[in-house]
Amino acid sequence: MKLYRSAATFPLERGGSLEELTIAYHTFGKLNERGDNAVWVCHGLTANSDVADWWPGATDKGSFIDSEKYFVVCANIIGSHYGTTGPLSINPDSGKPYYDSFPPITIRDMARAHALLADHLGLRFINTLIGASVGGFQALEWAISEPSRFGKLVLIATSAKASPWSIAIDETQRMAIKADPTYGNPSPEAGMAGMAAARAIGLLSYRGPYAYNLTQTDPDDAPADHLHRPVTYQRYQGEKLCRRFNAYSYVTILDAFDTHNVGRGRGGMVKALSRLSMPSLVVGIDTDIVFTPDETRSLAAMLPRATFREISSRMGHDGFLTEHKQLENIIKPFITDEYRTDN
Amino acid sequence: MKLYRSAATFPLERGGSLEELTIAYHTFGKLNERGDNAVWVCHGLTANSDVADWWPGATDKGSFIDSEKYFVVCANIIGSHYGTTGPLSINPDSGKPYYDSFPPITIRDMARAHALLADHLGLRFINTLIGASVGGFQALEWAISEPSRFGKLVLIATSAKASPWSIAIDETQRMAIKADPTYGNPSPEAGMAGMAAARAIGLLSYRGPYAYNLTQTDPDDAPADHLHRPVTYQRYQGEKLCRRFNAYSYVTILDAFDTHNVGRGRGGMVKALSRLSMPSLVVGIDTDIVFTPDETRSLAAMLPRATFREISSRMGHDGFLTEHKQLENIIKPFITDEYRTDN
Repeated sequence: MKLYRSAATFPLERGGSLEELTIAYHTFGKLNERGDNAVWVCHGLTANSDVADWWPGATDKGSFIDSEKYFVVCANIIGSHYGTTGPLSINPDSGKPYYDSFPPITIRDMARAHALLADHLGLRFINTLIGASVGGFQALEWAISEPSRFGKLVLIATSAKASPWSIAIDETQRMAIKADPTYGNPSPEAGMAGMAAARAIGLLSYRGPYAYNLTQTDPDDAPADHLHRPVTYQRYQGEKLCRRFNAYSYVTILDAFDTHNVGRGRGGMVKALSRLSMPSLVVGIDTDIVFTPDETRSLAAMLPRATFREISSRMGHDGFLTEHKQLENIIKPFITDEYRTDN
Repeated sequence: MKLYRSAATFPLERGGSLEELTIAYHTFGKLNERGDNAVWVCHGLTANSDVADWWPGATDKGSFIDSEKYFVVCANIIGSHYGTTGPLSINPDSGKPYYDSFPPITIRDMARAHALLADHLGLRFINTLIGASVGGFQALEWAISEPSRFGKLVLIATSAKASPWSIAIDETQRMAIKADPTYGNPSPEAGMAGMAAARAIGLLSYRGPYAYNLTQTDPDDAPADHLHRPVTYQRYQGEKLCRRFNAYSYVTILDAFDTHNVGRGRGGMVKALSRLSMPSLVVGIDTDIVFTPDETRSLAAMLPRATFREISSRMGHDGFLTEHKQLENIIKPFITDEYRTDN
């Protein structure tokens, strides 16, 4: 992990600013002499800049973002827990961590931080910008604000605007966190029981009925007082996030999620997306209940030069992490130009 | 609302017993001279015995359980908040409310209480037993334990066994309730913030993406700090349940939900369901993500004489409460014999 520190004040879309901004990032592979082999990956809700860690196989030799071929960059988003300035960072004004006084962030702020880092790395041209889920939100925002920087876009299980449904899921997670009265305490441990429940809510939405019914089945003859597998699974997943994240970052990123609307201040979604004249690949997942296939298909329909592909998975939204082979078969030829866009 | 008090000790499937059992119930219409016009309705998670209150139009003149034609009965389930013995009832041993010491209940216990009340009312024969959701769980359990009591079954948006997916949703709700440390306090107000979050989780599952995207849309040009409609909606729905329910009943009923498996101790689901040789009508809802159409269809496939019908709704699982006309068109001819079962 590397750190880039920007000394300039970083203004925020919703008002206020960050006096200092640190951006944590990873790079894999090398920029070639022509400077045209950079692939930038935007990460999702609680991931980090280490793509090789959270996206199994994606950067492996021969895979779709082969780090022997591409210069792969991923930056941790503002507000997160993994090195970039966030709620556990020291507020220069007080000399203490921000915690719940961390200012509200938008997806546009995250994208603007990516642009700062790209400038610092000398990447005036990025061959392909990839994002899945909230990573796709950032990719869209960044590409709309600086379309000429990018050769191609890959947008997986994502949308041009946070849907009422996804905002309802986010608010429900916040309600669970705030039901834990330790949320608000000046401590990295604040709100942990609430965040565990919030994570369990998130997981329901990332997986959906097919995944649970496939992977969490109990014996048919279990007694009435049986401790069911999906019960221990939800608890385990909640606890697991508590060991690696903090509730202030979680709420900050959920709040940012809700603000996602590429059309805001730009005359609507269609007009904003019309700036994206580069080839783009939009991938939907048939069992995704967060970003339904209808929603990803409609994103593709609004983009000037998009190809839409749907992959099949029993794992719902998390299919973007598990269906490696299907993604490789679609994304690799798109990035390597062996395959043409539809329009 | 009427009350039936059974002085006999009521044994419970998971061990222990209730020394006294009060059952709150409603009746609508009159039993005819032949005693063959009773329709028994089993209610869902947080509903009550007043069918006319929670199932709009269902008992109206001319509708599928027309109370001018049928003697309609509905009983509040054990563990609930609406008059039947539950966590806020006085424990005869201590002289104080049970709260979190209320013993664990199963769907079979609920069904056995219905049978007690039916005996009390002299209903040896019930023309039609109807249940949607957890009401369908009770209907299946009761019919399997006393098949000769029933002429027909109507099972809406329900299943023969709680799926891993639905148990995961239940556990996530319990995690939210238990993130609120007031849960456990000896008070009817205990765990309210947690229950509000739990209700919001439940609501996500009852409605699903289509309903939220249809009914909770914000203006396209909303600013980044806009308070979104789905946010206020989730909070409102959480608060609304807190004004009419208690967290101990909520957890008691979720726990009972998880135990649902008609095959337990009966050689499996198929064997248990083979006892139901009466005509049955199984209704699925196309957008239901709690009981998916696949799941309701598979229940119908396991029943000896079932007709399966799927209704179309944008409201997900809650479609059983909103798609009155479609249900009437299917259920009314089934109950009145104008329409024959498939097998």
